Amino acid sequence: MKTGFIGLGAMGLSMARNLHKAGLLHGVWNRTAARAAELAAETGCRQAADPAALAAEVEALVICVSADADVLGVVDALAPGARPGLVVVDCSTVSAVTAREAAARLARRGVGFLDCPVSGGVEGARNGTLAIMCGGDPATFERARPVLAAMGRAITHMGPTGYGQATKATNQILCAGVIQAVAEAMAFAKAEGLALDKVIEALSTGAGSSWYFVNRAPFMARGSYPAGFRVRLHDKDLGICHDMAAAHGVSLPVVETTRAQYRELMAAGHGDEDISTLFRLKDALFGAGR
Amino acid sequence: MKTGFIGLGAMGLSMARNLHKAGLLHGVWNRTAARAAELAAETGCRQAADPAALAAEVEALVICVSADADVLGVVDALAPGARPGLVVVDCSTVSAVTAREAAARLARRGVGFLDCPVSGGVEGARNGTLAIMCGGDPATFERARPVLAAMGRAITHMGPTGYGQATKATNQILCAGVIQAVAEAMAFAKAEGLALDKVIEALSTGAGSSWYFVNRAPFMARGSYPAGFRVRLHDKDLGICHDMAAAHGVSLPVVETTRAQYRELMAAGHGDEDISTLFRLKDALFGAGR
Repeated sequence: MKTGFIGLGAMGLSMARNLHKAGLLHGVWNRTAARAAELAAETGCRQAADPAALAAEVEALVICVSADADVLGVVDALAPGARPGLVVVDCSTVSAVTAREAAARLARRGVGFLDCPVSGGVEGARNGTLAIMCGGDPATFERARPVLAAMGRAITHMGPTGYGQATKATNQILCAGVIQAVAEAMAFAKAEGLALDKVIEALSTGAGSSWYFVNRAPFMARGSYPAGFRVRLHDKDLGICHDMAAAHGVSLPVVETTRAQYRELMAAGHGDEDISTLFRLKDALFGAGR
Repeated sequence: MKTGFIGLGAMGLSMARNLHKAGLLHGVWNRTAARAAELAAETGCRQAADPAALAAEVEALVICVSADADVLGVVDALAPGARPGLVVVDCSTVSAVTAREAAARLARRGVGFLDCPVSGGVEGARNGTLAIMCGGDPATFERARPVLAAMGRAITHMGPTGYGQATKATNQILCAGVIQAVAEAMAFAKAEGLALDKVIEALSTGAGSSWYFVNRAPFMARGSYPAGFRVRLHDKDLGICHDMAAAHGVSLPVVETTRAQYRELMAAGHGDEDISTLFRLKDALFGAGR
């Protein structure tokens, strides 16, 4: 399956390399052309002049960009070149509304679309162990399976278009609530004078535990927050959750509380730290009381 | 080590039985005498007339009661009979302040005290697999180790008196924040039309996951909340967290938000359901918007 790739950021570059290893990567395009040129030189794939030229040459086209407007911009740019039967696989994290809009624009030209946001971070992208949550037509999903399998491990078809993004948004709400829990509990433990490494040891296997407690409470114990899952990226994703909830007329407390605190952290220059840096604010609560 | 037990509730009864299996249970006392009589008949241990009489006959005395006032009441009742060198092991969940007060009252008579709250629920108590978080003098902790080992598996000495309770309170804050995360994320997923069992499958192994997501999100998917960790018991524990934080001049957002929502759930008759019943309130947010 001749596959193209658009969006060679930290995630996309590794994902494209894994497509190359699987013998699927035909060509690439990137807004900053130098990156595409480097990967073309490295892998021997073609560097396309523009998204439409790339779309004309491939059977599948993976997109991995940053924001909702970027996805729609790429879709509009590739559409003039796309042949009917092309499958566009969007691995960006955007709203379900954007996914449905992209699918509708491509459907008019007989082009299939799958929303396939990923989780697992830069490490998962590099190792090909991403979790991929997919929305779209089941037959289109089956056609794209070799492409997805080259980039990830746990690949789940969640339902029609938009359901991949809705699942990713669900995951980002989980992350927000759990980091609230871990940061608040660890700040309390510190204020009580407990040895934080002992607290982690005692509670890691219990009912209060979580991936974030096991893997990020140690960051809080050390007071060092290397990225990780950057505050500004999670904040962007929580903005998507906000918009999706707002479409139901709902404001989600965990989401809104966390966004407000992220704004505070970004203003203080912590936007590129791992989200466990939220501990700074919870710890400061006790600092004010001391 | 001749051991006595006071407080034969759902947890205490199973813990006392495990002490009996380990050959340690000498005698019991319970406010409702019939329960003590039954266990005495079952195990052949003595039923003491009062806490002081029991304290006079044993080397270790385990307490497992409900509230801070109960612990101090039992301590005052047993003290007149206690011989110097007795070790009192309090497995109740109360505040660190109460633990320090109990320790001080007993120290005057040369009696040792350990605060040893447990986690793992009724099932952990029955199977002898409780996690036990201990505070107190290290030598006293070592003396009591056979008693603790008969009741639990992960036994951690956290520091001086009160540190066991502080660790348990930390765990209860974690549970509050995580159940907020899981309930809000699952309500969002439901509103988006996702199949909740697929969401659980897709996200259980990811970075947003937690013990509560894996074990209690299925309760939310089914809309059935069998206890479990009852709302009214977690609410009691969060009251302890509130008091401990207030002693630092701090109000903890996760704790206070959860207490307010628990009050609402208890008023609606859901106090004896598992805390995953919080999903009802988060789901209702979307219901109001529909």
